[in-house]
Amino acid sequence: MTATRAGEAPLGSSARSAHPLDALLRPRSIAVIGASASPDKAGHAMMQALDGFDGELFPINPRGGTVLGRTALTGLGELPGPVDLAVLVVPPQVVPGAIEQAAAAGVRAAVVCAGGFAESGPEGHDLQEQAVEAARRGGVRLLGPNTSGFMNPVDGVFANFMPAAAGLRPGTVGIVAQSGGVNLAIAFLLDRAGIGLRLGVGLGNAADVGFAQMLDFYAEDDATTAVGLHVEGIADGGAVVEALRRVTARKPVVAFKVGRSDVGDFAKSHTGSLTGSYALTRAALAQAGAVVVDSLDEMVAALQALRSVRLPAAPRSATGVAVLTGQAGPGLVVADALGVRGVRVPELAPATLDLLGELLPPLTYQRNPVDTGRPSETFPAVLRTIAAEPGIAAIGVYALDEPGVLDPVTAVGGAAGRVLYATGGPASAVERHQARLDEIGVPLYSSPGDLAVGLAALVSDAAARAVPDAPAVTATRTIGRVLDEDEAKALFEAHGLRTMRRRAVADRDAAHDGLDELGGPDAPVVVKVLDAAVLHKSDVGGVHVGVRSHAELDAALDAIDAIDGRTAGRRYLVEEQAPRGTELIVGGVRDAVFGPVVLLGLGGVGVELAGGPGSEPVLRLAPLSAERAAEMVDALPAAVLDGFRGAPPVDRAALATTLLAVSDVLTQHHDVTEIDLNPVRVTARGPVVLDAVVVVRTPEEENHEQHA
Amino acid sequence: MTATRAGEAPLGSSARSAHPLDALLRPRSIAVIGASASPDKAGHAMMQALDGFDGELFPINPRGGTVLGRTALTGLGELPGPVDLAVLVVPPQVVPGAIEQAAAAGVRAAVVCAGGFAESGPEGHDLQEQAVEAARRGGVRLLGPNTSGFMNPVDGVFANFMPAAAGLRPGTVGIVAQSGGVNLAIAFLLDRAGIGLRLGVGLGNAADVGFAQMLDFYAEDDATTAVGLHVEGIADGGAVVEALRRVTARKPVVAFKVGRSDVGDFAKSHTGSLTGSYALTRAALAQAGAVVVDSLDEMVAALQALRSVRLPAAPRSATGVAVLTGQAGPGLVVADALGVRGVRVPELAPATLDLLGELLPPLTYQRNPVDTGRPSETFPAVLRTIAAEPGIAAIGVYALDEPGVLDPVTAVGGAAGRVLYATGGPASAVERHQARLDEIGVPLYSSPGDLAVGLAALVSDAAARAVPDAPAVTATRTIGRVLDEDEAKALFEAHGLRTMRRRAVADRDAAHDGLDELGGPDAPVVVKVLDAAVLHKSDVGGVHVGVRSHAELDAALDAIDAIDGRTAGRRYLVEEQAPRGTELIVGGVRDAVFGPVVLLGLGGVGVELAGGPGSEPVLRLAPLSAERAAEMVDALPAAVLDGFRGAPPVDRAALATTLLAVSDVLTQHHDVTEIDLNPVRVTARGPVVLDAVVVVRTPEEENHEQHA
Repeated sequence: MTATRAGEAPLGSSARSAHPLDALLRPRSIAVIGASASPDKAGHAMMQALDGFDGELFPINPRGGTVLGRTALTGLGELPGPVDLAVLVVPPQVVPGAIEQAAAAGVRAAVVCAGGFAESGPEGHDLQEQAVEAARRGGVRLLGPNTSGFMNPVDGVFANFMPAAAGLRPGTVGIVAQSGGVNLAIAFLLDRAGIGLRLGVGLGNAADVGFAQMLDFYAEDDATTAVGLHVEGIADGGAVVEALRRVTARKPVVAFKVGRSDVGDFAKSHTGSLTGSYALTRAALAQAGAVVVDSLDEMVAALQALRSVRLPAAPRSATGVAVLTGQAGPGLVVADALGVRGVRVPELAPATLDLLGELLPPLTYQRNPVDTGRPSETFPAVLRTIAAEPGIAAIGVYALDEPGVLDPVTAVGGAAGRVLYATGGPASAVERHQARLDEIGVPLYSSPGDLAVGLAALVSDAAARAVPDAPAVTATRTIGRVLDEDEAKALFEAHGLRTMRRRAVADRDAAHDGLDELGGPDAPVVVKVLDAAVLHKSDVGGVHVGVRSHAELDAALDAIDAIDGRTAGRRYLVEEQAPRGTELIVGGVRDAVFGPVVLLGLGGVGVELAGGPGSEPVLRLAPLSAERAAEMVDALPAAVLDGFRGAPPVDRAALATTLLAVSDVLTQHHDVTEIDLNPVRVTARGPVVLDAVVVVRTPEEENHEQHA
Repeated sequence: MTATRAGEAPLGSSARSAHPLDALLRPRSIAVIGASASPDKAGHAMMQALDGFDGELFPINPRGGTVLGRTALTGLGELPGPVDLAVLVVPPQVVPGAIEQAAAAGVRAAVVCAGGFAESGPEGHDLQEQAVEAARRGGVRLLGPNTSGFMNPVDGVFANFMPAAAGLRPGTVGIVAQSGGVNLAIAFLLDRAGIGLRLGVGLGNAADVGFAQMLDFYAEDDATTAVGLHVEGIADGGAVVEALRRVTARKPVVAFKVGRSDVGDFAKSHTGSLTGSYALTRAALAQAGAVVVDSLDEMVAALQALRSVRLPAAPRSATGVAVLTGQAGPGLVVADALGVRGVRVPELAPATLDLLGELLPPLTYQRNPVDTGRPSETFPAVLRTIAAEPGIAAIGVYALDEPGVLDPVTAVGGAAGRVLYATGGPASAVERHQARLDEIGVPLYSSPGDLAVGLAALVSDAAARAVPDAPAVTATRTIGRVLDEDEAKALFEAHGLRTMRRRAVADRDAAHDGLDELGGPDAPVVVKVLDAAVLHKSDVGGVHVGVRSHAELDAALDAIDAIDGRTAGRRYLVEEQAPRGTELIVGGVRDAVFGPVVLLGLGGVGVELAGGPGSEPVLRLAPLSAERAAEMVDALPAAVLDGFRGAPPVDRAALATTLLAVSDVLTQHHDVTEIDLNPVRVTARGPVVLDAVVVVRTPEEENHEQHA
């Protein structure tokens, strides 16, 4: 079961391992501090789990004695030489001291299982700092605290206090879970699905080794073909995003983020992490290349596919999927689930349909999904025919298990590497098929829904790699002061955006001149209060549309003056009224975890599209590349892009320019905290910025932020 | 494996079965027409599947011979006496004749497997009519055509051409699937989850036995404790809804509707059904008492719970769920998934927390979810303590499998009937636990996500029974003609709804009088075109708000007159402008499948809530009961109910009255096809109807409809 690494140095040698985390995750020798002979103690369970370890294993207990047939050392000082890993199953109070002693004894890495650290309050927080400090001084890498440990079936190391985990089958899937319990939960879900584990790590409080370090390990580990990532909250957004980019360039990552509903209190008590913005964290993970899923079950189904199949990088729109089914009903379920997930199931080309027509009975549906009717000996030829069509990147096959009618390996062997298979049948038959299909690199599922999740994961992974991101930008400029609408619009005009002609005026006479100049009976103007301190102008009666006459203008100005009763220093904006069109929201914000973020959302049409695909705002980390901005635009619902209810279609390039302008202003100026272009109206002549707000922080706030 | 029914009559007896479908689904004798000795023929697979049948089995093949050791009869005439069921595995063209012969031979029910009927086009449609006619004449009940048949593990009847299905474990879950393939797919998914099958039926084209008949069978079948329903499209909405109401009054039903994405073409080619309105079909199924899920996997997880646990009827808001977890991370995943599904996980009462504090270490989170830390011997006491709290209806337990630390049966035995359990561990251990937990009525899951699905299903099932529906109404009145806004508002005023004061006027002078009467400098009015032929008034410039002065009024009237250039016969509506408030949409429509339907949707605020829970329109079948109307209101997002962004909170009773008014107008008038109260503005003084449209069909259209 245990793979041996070539050229391994003997215990105590000074030769370095290939990776800085090897001493932790692929140790050659282990000391268990707190090993116990009492079966109900965690220190006993840990020894049980490590019982099959084929390196040197040293139980340590101050009272000595025997643990699972091994004589316990009474202290680290009794170790015969340096060991790679110390597993600490001791109360939190003694952890910092134990790490110090371990470092002195030559230990290079430690797993700390105990809770009672940063997740538990200020005292625990201090204790954790002491533990980290001791580890840093002694050159010891630390996993935890507050974790059940890790399982490494490939190298035969089960440093986890759940001994049953030692039976997990080895494989090529790596796990990084924020929680030790979830690490185990995922590992057993994978096992149940017949998927082997390369390594599963629960980070716990991640005081030293965190997401970024583990992702880098997997990036460089050739034994890993796909990675599952469980996230409660991310503290170091930039580092995690960068590490994700590195690993997803080489192998797929499937990520699950907890916190879609409000679970903040419990989450914080758990690993000490706030769950952060759910939507933004997911967007950031996806932008960095991860396939983001909605549950652990979906994670397993996605890993089932991606551990052996990876499609070439291509946008979603260029990745067609075919569904080939032996039974129409389940095929329909698969196609429906793919549609819900935004996967293209394109009609097959006429030439392909001609060929299929010769292979299949006339009554079946063949345009995609392709329904074979009861499978026959032509099934493999049908699959090959579909696979030969250039527009089809991957094929999902559903066929109930019918021994003697269809052999799965014969059926799909011709398209291995691009095909996922699902079947229904007796458990023993499914297991047998899975083992055989595994050998030729074809994942097997037991449910139509999981097959759709797997196919969607292939498409998402391919799409994630199709869009390059812009390199990071160092903000060198400041806005320096609060901008009013007129100034904010001028700023974005300088970045190439269109606005309506306008006059910023300081008295009524000038407003009337503005009306004469910009409007008239056939050309209504908009009259607004011009005051950077008034944020929700419409809500307070500060925006008046359709003003054509001087009488109407006076009425509007009266209403504006009535907002707070003052007229001294009152300024107004008189602006041409924009033509009709769909209204969008373009915004930017500087997030505490992930930095600058650009948002594209629906305006008024959102009502009628609510809940549908694309009705949620599109969030992306800035700076945006041109390709990323274009991808954001493409994420809008087709109904909006094509022109909603007779509105003009969206000029995609011009809208992308709008997004890039927001990205530029946000990333170039370090004092900008928020930008709202709301609405941006999509007119026949392109997008027009109808209102603009730029929020800046004062130098004092900036100073405070930088030292916080 | 085969349960024997007491008092069973011998073959050929004239004694009637207890249920009209017993001859079909629990036959005592079966003839297989088209039985074949060739292993690759469906007629052979069918005989294999039926091989273990312990009643009399007659293969029939015109060429005689031997099939699986049984001598084939060459025709129905050779049968020794009447048989209950004929299974037809013959080409479609000969089906009508075979049914006629079978009826003549005393056969009482038939399964028709062949495709090539209504799903395949006009010719097949005729063939199906002939088959149905032959069955009706001969008193033969028909399953199919175009189905793989059914599996009845409890009575030992596997009339299905997938022989492996004969290994399915018997149990208490019934399936009605529109598709024979999906029937098998669900059966194997259940089997994989360790759930036994009472009976699984694939309807195929449902030419005779359909959803309603099967639901009635399950309602009366004591061996069934829960039903899974797979729907592609429903033709007879009323009958299915009524049958569902009957069965869900006695046992839970879990329904999955295909067609969330656009799969219409393929669906129609499959069982000849259009998928119909996805949202409305789901709403109708739920209103009739079904738990509606999003995938077959969710169906299995829901059935896993509901086959052995059913909570007392109670609204969602009164059904608290507790999560008890041995590991914080998976518990957080469960709680998050419950929150997403709208399940309440309330903070436990102080008295309960005091008791838990004595049982658990201080560091764990105990308010709900309750985290035990590493499970200890207090686990059963913790569970009993939580179960004793009156606010907790059900408990979800997650605990990794730790032999020697926690025994699942000991842990949860005290709360059986209200508890669902999930674990992670080696497959053999999970199977062992499941068998033991099954015995005490505690469902066991292998994933945190499935546990959440199961708990949510318990809550949905309880909620579905908490709201009584109004009895059907016979429409006796007509509106008779198209109503303009003024008339439509008067109609709803007569039903008790509030509108703003208004004047319908036929010339400009009267409009100016209206302004004097209703408005002024401090009281703006709204001026609208009054013309039933103009449907989208705002879009054509037919609505002018904020009109305070006579000059503004003239400008507005000019704009209205400019809509189509005509002024002769032009009428206007001058109306008081309503106070601010959240805008909602209340509507009604007469659906071709389900009849009158009432809709409640979000207006402008939908944009900011898009994609969130409750942002989709709420649909319910009319007539509404008062309780149903209240439940619709409660389905709005809390953010809207409480007053969105400083808007007044929703007067729930008054809004329910608005829904009831729409329900009344729609159900009492047979010529009303659509109602739009859009918007209904929720003001501080209650909801106000700002616009009203009532669409009626002409007597000609009605006449056509009734005879279509």
